[in-house]
Amino acid sequence: MNIAIIGLGLIGGSVAKDLRERKFANHIYGVDINTENAKMALQLKIVDEIVTLEQGINNSELIIIATPVDATISILPEILDNVKAQTVTDMGSTKEQILESVKFHQKRKNFVASHPMAGTEFSGPSAALSGLFENKTTILCDVEESSEEAVSIVRKMYDVLKMNVVEMSGTSHDVHVAYVSHISHISSFALALTVMDIEEDEKNIFNLASGGFESTVRLAKSSADMWAPIFMQNSKNVLTALNNYIDKLQELKIYIKEQRISEMHNVIIKSNRIKEILNN
Amino acid sequence: MNIAIIGLGLIGGSVAKDLRERKFANHIYGVDINTENAKMALQLKIVDEIVTLEQGINNSELIIIATPVDATISILPEILDNVKAQTVTDMGSTKEQILESVKFHQKRKNFVASHPMAGTEFSGPSAALSGLFENKTTILCDVEESSEEAVSIVRKMYDVLKMNVVEMSGTSHDVHVAYVSHISHISSFALALTVMDIEEDEKNIFNLASGGFESTVRLAKSSADMWAPIFMQNSKNVLTALNNYIDKLQELKIYIKEQRISEMHNVIIKSNRIKEILNN
Repeated sequence: MNIAIIGLGLIGGSVAKDLRERKFANHIYGVDINTENAKMALQLKIVDEIVTLEQGINNSELIIIATPVDATISILPEILDNVKAQTVTDMGSTKEQILESVKFHQKRKNFVASHPMAGTEFSGPSAALSGLFENKTTILCDVEESSEEAVSIVRKMYDVLKMNVVEMSGTSHDVHVAYVSHISHISSFALALTVMDIEEDEKNIFNLASGGFESTVRLAKSSADMWAPIFMQNSKNVLTALNNYIDKLQELKIYIKEQRISEMHNVIIKSNRIKEILNN
Repeated sequence: MNIAIIGLGLIGGSVAKDLRERKFANHIYGVDINTENAKMALQLKIVDEIVTLEQGINNSELIIIATPVDATISILPEILDNVKAQTVTDMGSTKEQILESVKFHQKRKNFVASHPMAGTEFSGPSAALSGLFENKTTILCDVEESSEEAVSIVRKMYDVLKMNVVEMSGTSHDVHVAYVSHISHISSFALALTVMDIEEDEKNIFNLASGGFESTVRLAKSSADMWAPIFMQNSKNVLTALNNYIDKLQELKIYIKEQRISEMHNVIIKSNRIKEILNN
């Protein structure tokens, strides 16, 4: 199958590697407005050819959008304007606004909204990894709005990527990821900023940083181009999650301030339940 | 050297393993008020013998306290009451209150306050690991209050554990760890609690949890017995750090609420600087 990948970063690049190695893709057309990224993706043989968006659309059976979600919203209607029988899918971390942007498009059925839940804190084509998606979950949203054929092609692609496919509404998706992904990133960005602020007064504080600190700030290395638009698009759910999170912090703060050790002990025991949950 | 280890959990057990394997310890006396832990430490051959605190003190040249910090405060003066020429060290994550508890003790010079900055989110003697401390940093506090001989013995022990030794005041230690360790744990406990609350309404939300989420909540698996007293003892610094952290979250919240994408973009770029810092 000929495939066009729009956006040759960590996700687009990793998809390209697996689809080629596993013979799902014959020829991969790469499209990126960042000419540096495009050049590097070609050098790394992630794509066969760098082309314009128009050429990518015209020459492919499957068009994969792997751009930041603000770019997806502006580019998706344009792509659907130009497809005939091709299937289009996106890989964005938000779904409601993307779905909204093509709700009444006459080619709506050619589009399958998806979100492969995999990644690292690194970005760009040089961060692309073979096998990144293996045994992870991908979400297809509002599939009843897509043609059976388009859904079938996208499901086949995710089979090749060895992902577990889950279906849900875009609305439900956005609530879920606010809690299990977006709020983690916000907590990590804020933690990095807090500790870097204090560093101005306390030199060498990071010499003492332990593995625990590294684990909680790992996500603070994540791409601003990717994450700023995610928070804007999923603002409603992210704000609810963030308010709940701040409420929890305020609760812990009171226990510390008032030296209520037994209540602190109890909430830690409660939070320990995350062990069992994550092992499932 | 004969050594007594008071508290046979993750830290005490891991110290015992390395000190024995590397021939620093000839005989290790284990003391633990938790008889289950004591029994298991003996079964796992982490210690040679389970003894009373009194026996441990009388038969050893070096006494290592590896209990939760609230237990350390109550046990340390009692141990110093009973030592002759022995050296005593603790491994607690707080220092000011522990130092305060023996400030005017007549055997103060036998005590060296220390904090090896290593650990995992697991606890108990079965979590003990060989090599846990290797290439990590340990902090010795207020060493001018200890005898040269005691400092020399404790430094030798940390050489055997292959740790980098840093000296600072107890006050400075407590500020530093509030930022690079304690606040990370609070953010993680609060995140776990937030997501578990929403789980009651959104079934199966954890099926979608990605590696990023696991990384930020990893510390929420940590021991309540260990962490509740740490937050209580270091409350002043932890509260300052926590207030700064909540302020950062409020700032990010405003950017999201008011759709100020360029400011959000800028703070993410700023937080990305953590990459360079952690690679040093």
